[in-house]
Amino acid sequence: MPELRKDPIVGRWVIISTDRAKRPTDFLRERFVHKGGFCPFCYGNETKTPPEILAYRPSNGGPPAQPNTPGWTVRVVPNKFPALGIEGSLNRQAEGMFDKVTGIGAHEVIIESPEHLETLATLPEKRIEDVLWAYRDRILDLKQDRRFRYILIFKNHGEAAGASLEHPHGQLIALPILPKHIVEELEGAKQYYLIKERCVYCDIIRQETEAGVRIIAENDSFVTLAPYAPRFPFETWVMPKRHESAFENASSKTYQDLARALKQLLMKSDRVLDNPAYNLVIHSAPIQDPALDHFHWHIEFMPKLTKTAGFEWGTGFYINPTPPEEAARFLREARVETPQTVGK
Amino acid sequence: MPELRKDPIVGRWVIISTDRAKRPTDFLRERFVHKGGFCPFCYGNETKTPPEILAYRPSNGGPPAQPNTPGWTVRVVPNKFPALGIEGSLNRQAEGMFDKVTGIGAHEVIIESPEHLETLATLPEKRIEDVLWAYRDRILDLKQDRRFRYILIFKNHGEAAGASLEHPHGQLIALPILPKHIVEELEGAKQYYLIKERCVYCDIIRQETEAGVRIIAENDSFVTLAPYAPRFPFETWVMPKRHESAFENASSKTYQDLARALKQLLMKSDRVLDNPAYNLVIHSAPIQDPALDHFHWHIEFMPKLTKTAGFEWGTGFYINPTPPEEAARFLREARVETPQTVGK
Repeated sequence: MPELRKDPIVGRWVIISTDRAKRPTDFLRERFVHKGGFCPFCYGNETKTPPEILAYRPSNGGPPAQPNTPGWTVRVVPNKFPALGIEGSLNRQAEGMFDKVTGIGAHEVIIESPEHLETLATLPEKRIEDVLWAYRDRILDLKQDRRFRYILIFKNHGEAAGASLEHPHGQLIALPILPKHIVEELEGAKQYYLIKERCVYCDIIRQETEAGVRIIAENDSFVTLAPYAPRFPFETWVMPKRHESAFENASSKTYQDLARALKQLLMKSDRVLDNPAYNLVIHSAPIQDPALDHFHWHIEFMPKLTKTAGFEWGTGFYINPTPPEEAARFLREARVETPQTVGK
Repeated sequence: MPELRKDPIVGRWVIISTDRAKRPTDFLRERFVHKGGFCPFCYGNETKTPPEILAYRPSNGGPPAQPNTPGWTVRVVPNKFPALGIEGSLNRQAEGMFDKVTGIGAHEVIIESPEHLETLATLPEKRIEDVLWAYRDRILDLKQDRRFRYILIFKNHGEAAGASLEHPHGQLIALPILPKHIVEELEGAKQYYLIKERCVYCDIIRQETEAGVRIIAENDSFVTLAPYAPRFPFETWVMPKRHESAFENASSKTYQDLARALKQLLMKSDRVLDNPAYNLVIHSAPIQDPALDHFHWHIEFMPKLTKTAGFEWGTGFYINPTPPEEAARFLREARVETPQTVGK
């Protein structure tokens, strides 16, 4: 008998098929494949992108490096085709009964490596940590712009997940509004806090760690788990154990442990699901908010295993053919070699 | 400068690109193509589906036809691989802090024609009307089962939209819970009603009909329009002009006019967008509710023009490259021949 399960934060019901559970090999997935061709994000093509906003260039004791030249490990540039414009003032307007705002925002690309054929999974932990520091640096900078209320950091890996360039990269969008799903999480978590006087995410971590069936991995600072009511097969959350509402306020030890947790999850996913396309989204508190007792930042990882789900967009209703307990077991048991951290 | 627009019902913000607006020919769409092979929904294969629940068989004055034999125009059968099971009792349970319900529900297939190569767009209006009556008949029957709270009627057309069989068909899922998006619409519409004492959908119809820029078509009972803050390029809503919260309570003239409106929209979409895959969802009130002053049933039509949008699932944030005013103009100006209603 299938089960209907409710997400305890946003109240979304999901059908979990327990009868004919789909195993990793049952999915006709669109694998991540390299296509080649000219790439503006590659080493040596620094002038083919808009001028860089930020780059980490390991110093070799020589004179400081010039911007927009090789020598970097992580590089942040404006998106050449931004969804929103950075210039102009925020203009809130009515159009009869409707509401609109001028499309002010920032849209940046975080290039994770000069090497085209790397992926976030194959980078050394220390280099993944650098990517996380780049996210943080950009958030701290953009946070000063009072026009922005939210910063969305996400990664589309593979064409099936919406990536138009295959070179390893993530994206940042700064918005003058709050995205709907974030509002729902904030409200759901607040509601829970008002009743229980506890953070719902902290409660999830506590209950899941005790039960163990949906736990995939754990280190000093993070727990990686399959959520109780996942929308997608093999959906995974990476959650900091210590309560903190904003990604950018984490400690340096946290980024180090997050890099380790992410690398392990991505390697396990590549192993078990055969290099799937995926989306990865950081869920963090609104940038202008103080530290929140009810919200807990985390990362949601969604491998793209099912061909399409247009219907789900229209209804908010999800049918998931893989119980999270099964997904967690496959990922937990996957043996991957996590090499020691190596220098840049 | 792009615009951020807010959906007045659910409060979702959407980026509308106004600079490099995508025209119909700019989309690399996955077109609907026939693949052939054995089809259990075809004329003569009636024994290859589970036994029929309902079928319309035009009488020719002879003896009544036998079920599960040819001679039908619309046929409803249980889904052979149902997402939910019809037998058993509803069991609401806790799992620590989580909530679950046994997966009780109905999952049916509405076969729209015995002809494999027809589509809903190519059927005569009278036959589309029969499909709508079949929806209504099934809703009225399932409504008596007090375990169910919602009936979702939808259509996935084409592989890219999630259809696994190409024979023209729709689906019905009866649920013991309310899907999230429906809850949001009900709550958003109620909020508006509490403030304005008017139905938000009625207000939209009034404002849009006066402005005209987002109107695609209109007949006695329906207005077909591009919503102000659409998530997807060429997203279209078909709305009854007269306030009514439930699809199944409409008048027979309403179904006749809806068949005409749907045929016209689908033909225009096939013309302008070159036979796109699409999802179509009926948004109606919960089946156990009385007539609601604040909710207004309608149909949402979403052609599948963009390759993927996994990111959108994770954030509830949408970037739409085609302003609805442009989409409406293309569809409004598309000339299609709508043949006169012909008999079955």
